[in-house]
Amino acid sequence: MSERIAHSGLKSKVMSAEEAAEFVNNGDKVGTSGFTGAGYPKALPTAIAERAKAAHDRGDEFQIELFTGASTAVDCDGVLAEANAISYRTPYNSDPVLRGQINAGEAKYWDIHLSHLGKQVQEGFFGKFDVAIIEAVAIREDGTVVPSSAVGNNIEFIDAADKVIIEVNEWQSRDLEGMHDIYRIEPAGQRTPINITAPGDRIGGTALEFDTSKVVAVVETDRPDRNAPFTPADETSKKIAGHFLDFLEGEVRAGRLSYDRYIMQSGVGNVPNAVMAGLLDSKFENITAYTEVIQDGMVDLIDAGKMTVASATSFSLSPEYAEKMNAEAARYRESIILRPQQVSNHPEVIRRLGLIATNGMIEADIYGNINSTNVSGSRVMNGIGGSGDFTRNAQVSSFISPSVAKGGDISAIVPFASHIDHHEHDAMVIITENGFADLRGLAPRDRVKKMVDIAHESYRPLLEEYVEAASKSKFQQTPHDLARAFEFHTRFLETGSMHK
Amino acid sequence: MSERIAHSGLKSKVMSAEEAAEFVNNGDKVGTSGFTGAGYPKALPTAIAERAKAAHDRGDEFQIELFTGASTAVDCDGVLAEANAISYRTPYNSDPVLRGQINAGEAKYWDIHLSHLGKQVQEGFFGKFDVAIIEAVAIREDGTVVPSSAVGNNIEFIDAADKVIIEVNEWQSRDLEGMHDIYRIEPAGQRTPINITAPGDRIGGTALEFDTSKVVAVVETDRPDRNAPFTPADETSKKIAGHFLDFLEGEVRAGRLSYDRYIMQSGVGNVPNAVMAGLLDSKFENITAYTEVIQDGMVDLIDAGKMTVASATSFSLSPEYAEKMNAEAARYRESIILRPQQVSNHPEVIRRLGLIATNGMIEADIYGNINSTNVSGSRVMNGIGGSGDFTRNAQVSSFISPSVAKGGDISAIVPFASHIDHHEHDAMVIITENGFADLRGLAPRDRVKKMVDIAHESYRPLLEEYVEAASKSKFQQTPHDLARAFEFHTRFLETGSMHK
Repeated sequence: MSERIAHSGLKSKVMSAEEAAEFVNNGDKVGTSGFTGAGYPKALPTAIAERAKAAHDRGDEFQIELFTGASTAVDCDGVLAEANAISYRTPYNSDPVLRGQINAGEAKYWDIHLSHLGKQVQEGFFGKFDVAIIEAVAIREDGTVVPSSAVGNNIEFIDAADKVIIEVNEWQSRDLEGMHDIYRIEPAGQRTPINITAPGDRIGGTALEFDTSKVVAVVETDRPDRNAPFTPADETSKKIAGHFLDFLEGEVRAGRLSYDRYIMQSGVGNVPNAVMAGLLDSKFENITAYTEVIQDGMVDLIDAGKMTVASATSFSLSPEYAEKMNAEAARYRESIILRPQQVSNHPEVIRRLGLIATNGMIEADIYGNINSTNVSGSRVMNGIGGSGDFTRNAQVSSFISPSVAKGGDISAIVPFASHIDHHEHDAMVIITENGFADLRGLAPRDRVKKMVDIAHESYRPLLEEYVEAASKSKFQQTPHDLARAFEFHTRFLETGSMHK
Repeated sequence: MSERIAHSGLKSKVMSAEEAAEFVNNGDKVGTSGFTGAGYPKALPTAIAERAKAAHDRGDEFQIELFTGASTAVDCDGVLAEANAISYRTPYNSDPVLRGQINAGEAKYWDIHLSHLGKQVQEGFFGKFDVAIIEAVAIREDGTVVPSSAVGNNIEFIDAADKVIIEVNEWQSRDLEGMHDIYRIEPAGQRTPINITAPGDRIGGTALEFDTSKVVAVVETDRPDRNAPFTPADETSKKIAGHFLDFLEGEVRAGRLSYDRYIMQSGVGNVPNAVMAGLLDSKFENITAYTEVIQDGMVDLIDAGKMTVASATSFSLSPEYAEKMNAEAARYRESIILRPQQVSNHPEVIRRLGLIATNGMIEADIYGNINSTNVSGSRVMNGIGGSGDFTRNAQVSSFISPSVAKGGDISAIVPFASHIDHHEHDAMVIITENGFADLRGLAPRDRVKKMVDIAHESYRPLLEEYVEAASKSKFQQTPHDLARAFEFHTRFLETGSMHK
């Protein structure tokens, strides 16, 4: 048995994943660890999927309602979806099989702010959970549990669950202990300020503390997180990153930002990594991150002495960087903090710190409304994630995207966003490879030219045609021609291209 | 001279409004006190409007950029708009003349969260202000200024302004002194937690403290706030209020709310007042309000011993209740607190307290997206106000509206909201006279029937027709037929009715 299971009572609960999966039944509400492919359980999902398949083969029903931190991986969401074992999913998913089931109307998906789910679980909206399944680095002698590469909603799910299953994963570095800052937000009526005034502040303990009598099973694993390989930045990403850095420089010139102690929030992806590569060679010093996920680019900034602290709830690293993290966690835990996602994404802290938020998008409209979730209004991609938590409360919110997708058939700038996840009152700066549109302080009709200017040149005439039609509106605060507002999207649905 | 001007240096600055208006020039950025018709300056706007008219008569340009707390009144926004003296306005307007100019494309309007403007002024986005004009109850001997019936963005505007003009209004009760809780939120990098853990907590002083050498003029006035007469609740409002109270009772039964210490946030209007009338006869006790404005219904709840504390940034009372407040401010200041709007509307405090938010709306769509601002997508009514500050951070967010407007020609439930100010990730409960739709936790397509059920019966077949068309979408997360999504609105624009 692993030395990592040091609590004598819980040693006696060690069993196989198949045995542990017997605690999970049809119709159960199951909350798991896991956030952006890190820290999710790696043995139970497959074992539950096998149970579901066996039940389905017998003609019995077997589906669970699955609650996580955010996205997981093919060996969690993926295997369960393949087995048709998920009836309901929240708060965020990026698994392609499950996404297909959701868009086919076979699985139900509640797409919700990442800071909201844990709160609503605490507030009792979902009632009791049947099972919480939590990946850990170790169970300490006193029964407290050191989480692994994500903290997510662990506290809330454990508190709400009747039964807890712990997966102790030997692949995860033992030295992650000490990197976490585990702080429990109290229920309404007892809540006090979250005393974080800088990204590096620690306010909690290093492990999950709870009633260990809830633990019905401990399972040993040795499997890696889903770590997507790093793709080198392409020319478009580099251009977008360049415009973002130009924007930052402008803020410094305007006296609203300093080269010292810029606080970053960043969505995941190629462009953010290109931004971070740009920051390596910039005048910015003592950068910190208060964000959801630690990415390769932040590790580079830490190694270069450019970033002093990165606070998040999870890793989202390439395999190479995950290996480095595992090898050097004892060093990195001096400058990296993993928090519960209610804290990493909390409006209170985000608003207090005054950070600059940068998130991806599917499309933006000519007035600065942002679609982050549903392609052509109906087809969900991943979900809103934490973009709302950060955008609404940031000092500056920005959205980044190449101006076209699908080889030019989709324009990221449209007349009317076909689903709105961040609206004109929140989105401040929109950036494509063609430049940045700073919409702050502008009446809606003064934003239009800036948005058309960052569109792909092949779409500018079509956008101008719409703007001309909309300008005939009797009402000029937000001129629209509603009969034509979705013509980019309906053309795409009919012909496969937003082009005429 | 009024005894209310006790500072010797500032006594020497007393002058007429006409003289003071000479400090305001064409192109100036002017920040004033005032929030929902309370606490706005009452002499300077008319004097500035006269200056503008004289300039226009001479063929000269004269327009200002006007920043306030929220809406003001006919003797502030109204007179300035009549004189074509406003080029730019933020963050909220309800004046009909100015609204007409905005919708005609003659004045520019930036419609923004009420908690955001002061923050952005502090963060330097607007640069220096030329003039701040602040209504006060008194100037104390030490030069500190006691605000009147609204606090709004007074601190931020004074801090940003080169010149400050104080209007000391004898109409406002001298006993308002002690009702305010003036707390200055520091700039990013120096901000600390806002130490409010219950609506009644006081964390600041009772007056505005600033460098009095900035004061260029003090003007004496004696004019009432704009206090709209109270309209008795109609049958529809009473029904909506009844459904809201049913919803609250359900939360109590589910163990998520207690009859003791329910915390209320409420938009302004007839329905909220009907809700408060309902609460008078309910089992709820020790109610508190953490909200933007103090309304008649809250005063009744306080008088009945049902409400212990109401915290806001402003009054919004009927003339009768304003008179009562002026007569008994010394008593009411024991249970009423007026705060800066950055604090009354702060995400940090709202989220911590766990309140139940209730705001009006123009329309909601079948998936729970809310339009609070633009009729048929283009014509702005008032603005988003504080509805976003409260909705995003409340324990439960609710929206209320009669199911039809304009004698039935407009449906409040539509296929696709023509402007989205609160989206499906934020809006939880929608209430009309036909019932409440509790959308929490539901996948989008499971919300549709609930939304159709609360629509007016005359619109249900049309909504069902759309739902049927949308159900043919290839993608079932949020099924839409984008070619028809705005058919309610385009029909209304063409025929004057959303009915066929």
